[in-house]
Amino acid sequence: MSDSPKADNLVRHMGSIGPEDRAALLRQRGCVVWLTGLSGSGKSTIAHGLEARLHAAGHASYVLDGDNVRHGLNRDLTFSAEDRTENIRRIGEVAALFADAGLITLVAFISPYRAGREAAREAAGEGRFIETFVDVPLDTCEQRDPKGLYQKARDGKIADFTGISAPYEAPERPEVSIPTGELTLDDSVARLEAFLKDNGFIWE
Amino acid sequence: MSDSPKADNLVRHMGSIGPEDRAALLRQRGCVVWLTGLSGSGKSTIAHGLEARLHAAGHASYVLDGDNVRHGLNRDLTFSAEDRTENIRRIGEVAALFADAGLITLVAFISPYRAGREAAREAAGEGRFIETFVDVPLDTCEQRDPKGLYQKARDGKIADFTGISAPYEAPERPEVSIPTGELTLDDSVARLEAFLKDNGFIWE
Repeated sequence: MSDSPKADNLVRHMGSIGPEDRAALLRQRGCVVWLTGLSGSGKSTIAHGLEARLHAAGHASYVLDGDNVRHGLNRDLTFSAEDRTENIRRIGEVAALFADAGLITLVAFISPYRAGREAAREAAGEGRFIETFVDVPLDTCEQRDPKGLYQKARDGKIADFTGISAPYEAPERPEVSIPTGELTLDDSVARLEAFLKDNGFIWE
Repeated sequence: MSDSPKADNLVRHMGSIGPEDRAALLRQRGCVVWLTGLSGSGKSTIAHGLEARLHAAGHASYVLDGDNVRHGLNRDLTFSAEDRTENIRRIGEVAALFADAGLITLVAFISPYRAGREAAREAAGEGRFIETFVDVPLDTCEQRDPKGLYQKARDGKIADFTGISAPYEAPERPEVSIPTGELTLDDSVARLEAFLKDNGFIWE
């Protein structure tokens, strides 16, 4: 949207609804909260906890995670290196569309590579991407092992498992860090909600 | 979501927000309005007109069209037959995610094949997919030719152009038909808005 009233009128006449219009309607600014961290670190739990809290406060959000992406949009992708890259690329592009639509968009994937997360940041647009490092030591995640995946990786039944047989590139300057080994779930969610408020993404 | 209050509480406790929650928050039911028709039939114009009208009435909607999909999510796809199929498949899956998030999702692509549109209907879920046939005769579209594409297709500069050198499979039982050769833009938009109201997708 241009700052020029004339151009603005022209755009409106053509029926285009822009970010300011959506913000006024939804009382929030669309953005991407990108949760990255090891398997078992709590990304999806935090995302769904934040979604519930935002909903209770009257905000529209949506969680993109393995449950709704892997069996639909990305069901054609394998776990090869190339397809994992494409998996994250598509998720970054879809998250950008959701943010453009005005939603608080919560993304919960391991997303171990910096390059993939930077591409997602670029797609969302600077200032709309909140990289959130769910920072839990490997041994803690491995002790939790809620899906038994670490055991399988140690037994050689899963190849290229992040943290065991494939690298995890930790964020260097994440917008938010959440050490869930030290914070309760409620406190983790509260930290993210406070960030959204303090930075003007949501308001009363 | 289960109808059982106990299961419902369990789901809520886990932090999952379901369709009923989103409908209550946004005062609308997420759905996919899938506009199909020849190039130049007016799909995108109607979609943006409907978006403006819905916005003015306080409803959250979003248009998926070539402008925001081809250069992002689907920029890896060519115009080969296989990639055109994949283009529509992904759009159908993304539209389903948007509808699941509670938005009135407006999709404007030629989408010439019944199979592609049926797959999109299946992804969205029955009862949430509003196939809308923008029904304009080929010669009218060719006379309009706003982007000069028909001329290029006639000159053999574009291969497999829908209506000229590739088939268009018209919908057999679309939820809505819009003969834009006979209706004004305002009337076309009004017809779709009335359908959304009459079928309980939007309310005051």
